[in-house]
Amino acid sequence: MEKTAIGVDIGGTKVKLGVVSKTGKLINRSVIENTPRSPVECMKRIVSAVSSLLRTVDGRHKNISGIGVAVAGDIDCRNGVVRFSPNLGWRNVEIRRYFKGHFKTDVFVENDANAAAWGIYCVELKRKLKNVVCITLGTGVGGGLVIDGRLYRGSTGSAGEIGHVSLFPDGEKCNCGNYGCVERYIGRDGILKKFLSRLSADKRASADIKSITPETIARAAKSGDKISIETFRETGEQLGVFACSIANIFNPDVIAFTGGISRNGDILFGPMKRIFAKRCGLTRKKTRFYVSKQPENIGIIGSACLVFVPHS
Amino acid sequence: MEKTAIGVDIGGTKVKLGVVSKTGKLINRSVIENTPRSPVECMKRIVSAVSSLLRTVDGRHKNISGIGVAVAGDIDCRNGVVRFSPNLGWRNVEIRRYFKGHFKTDVFVENDANAAAWGIYCVELKRKLKNVVCITLGTGVGGGLVIDGRLYRGSTGSAGEIGHVSLFPDGEKCNCGNYGCVERYIGRDGILKKFLSRLSADKRASADIKSITPETIARAAKSGDKISIETFRETGEQLGVFACSIANIFNPDVIAFTGGISRNGDILFGPMKRIFAKRCGLTRKKTRFYVSKQPENIGIIGSACLVFVPHS
Repeated sequence: MEKTAIGVDIGGTKVKLGVVSKTGKLINRSVIENTPRSPVECMKRIVSAVSSLLRTVDGRHKNISGIGVAVAGDIDCRNGVVRFSPNLGWRNVEIRRYFKGHFKTDVFVENDANAAAWGIYCVELKRKLKNVVCITLGTGVGGGLVIDGRLYRGSTGSAGEIGHVSLFPDGEKCNCGNYGCVERYIGRDGILKKFLSRLSADKRASADIKSITPETIARAAKSGDKISIETFRETGEQLGVFACSIANIFNPDVIAFTGGISRNGDILFGPMKRIFAKRCGLTRKKTRFYVSKQPENIGIIGSACLVFVPHS
Repeated sequence: MEKTAIGVDIGGTKVKLGVVSKTGKLINRSVIENTPRSPVECMKRIVSAVSSLLRTVDGRHKNISGIGVAVAGDIDCRNGVVRFSPNLGWRNVEIRRYFKGHFKTDVFVENDANAAAWGIYCVELKRKLKNVVCITLGTGVGGGLVIDGRLYRGSTGSAGEIGHVSLFPDGEKCNCGNYGCVERYIGRDGILKKFLSRLSADKRASADIKSITPETIARAAKSGDKISIETFRETGEQLGVFACSIANIFNPDVIAFTGGISRNGDILFGPMKRIFAKRCGLTRKKTRFYVSKQPENIGIIGSACLVFVPHS
């Protein structure tokens, strides 16, 4: 009987969860749409969804070793508590205590970007390379740091907030208090802003702005729309500048990417690599890039891997 | 009899060395002026200086456990080889082999910024705080990363090149290939440039430019010279922007400073702290600053500590 673990990825819009094998294979999966804002309600729904998942897996996958839970925000990993999640509006939610009470098994709680990094490190890169900086490209820009084969969380669990590095010190103010943060330029809103600023006044006035997303811009770029191509070129170049700084700081084996925006391939990573090759004289030859093959599920898988692989 | 180690700090202009006690106390010290450019000549001079040092310490300090050697550049710590030191023009210099042949004891070779970080971590901070980012402020801007109580060197030993993070992506070209590197603004030449650009054309024409150094500017600032004060204010503010990025990446216990320019106290660190307090919303309350009390000797002491304290 193969050992398995449950991975739960609690996001701002939905909760994704699944049964994951010890080798990192996602055996089955379910989604709770519209993440309940009440923590207790949310955890109840997860308990019920886990029970359903376990009913549908075949016998040899019912040997659950533990549960890993990923949440965006400030996490107290030692005690399994969400200290604060701005996206969910949660404060001091005792995730471990709740799930341990229900499932009588080990429970690990981790920041979502860290969980994704752990999934990429353990499963996609098979733990062969020990120093991995993982950049999550989505609504926000997050980071997970694998240092010498361990998750590095910093002195109080807040390490890896790489989306809040100043890319342009005199740039626009960010919600975090800093100015010109990477996230303002490479995150979802930064991409939209770049696109809209390139539209002519006429087009901007007549555009259905709410329907424009990084995905629609990416589709247009792939069909040859110049403004969309330019939008991703500029974003990719800024990502290249940032990747060069990250390489000079960490000299990592790999800079890995995940998150929805990482699915855009060459229109984003082509310009990134060009800028990196041009600027990164110190560690250029030593740094590899990697893009997650399953950004949609890496949070579930990484959370489950917290159960199987020692991470701190 | 107290155990001791030899620390050797090979710099571009001079070699500093000393006998260091296990508690990190510098027992005696000597300096070789004008670092010989020939590696063999340099190592011979060091052997001779070490022998002199050992003759002058009293009996209870002659129990040498090993030698630590710090060199600016790209170091292969595992094999004790200087791969490349641009300052010295050295390539593939087998430091460990040479000294082991002479002294029949353990020899550790380390990048100079790492050695300084190790000295601050082990001796000045007494290993109480496990995550320390050390910023060396001098001609260049270097970095040493202590992560969970170990020196983090990256995948090929080049980690911590934090002076080559882009502070201004569209800024001036750096020797490393990147643009707008931190070192260009906060390093020696950046400070001089700020000062000169503030002088009136008349004054600039008549100034004895070679006699102007960060030290002379600092002295003038402390006597109330406005242009000098402004020079350090701008430098400190840029350092504050950078420190905020470092805090958001590492969530360290401490950001520590050493190097000649770190001796300037409030004229530099006052503006840095103001900007940090304003911008660093995420980890402001969790980050402490520390300035080395003995920047002149921390390279010697840190090198010797490589012998006493497991570091990788």
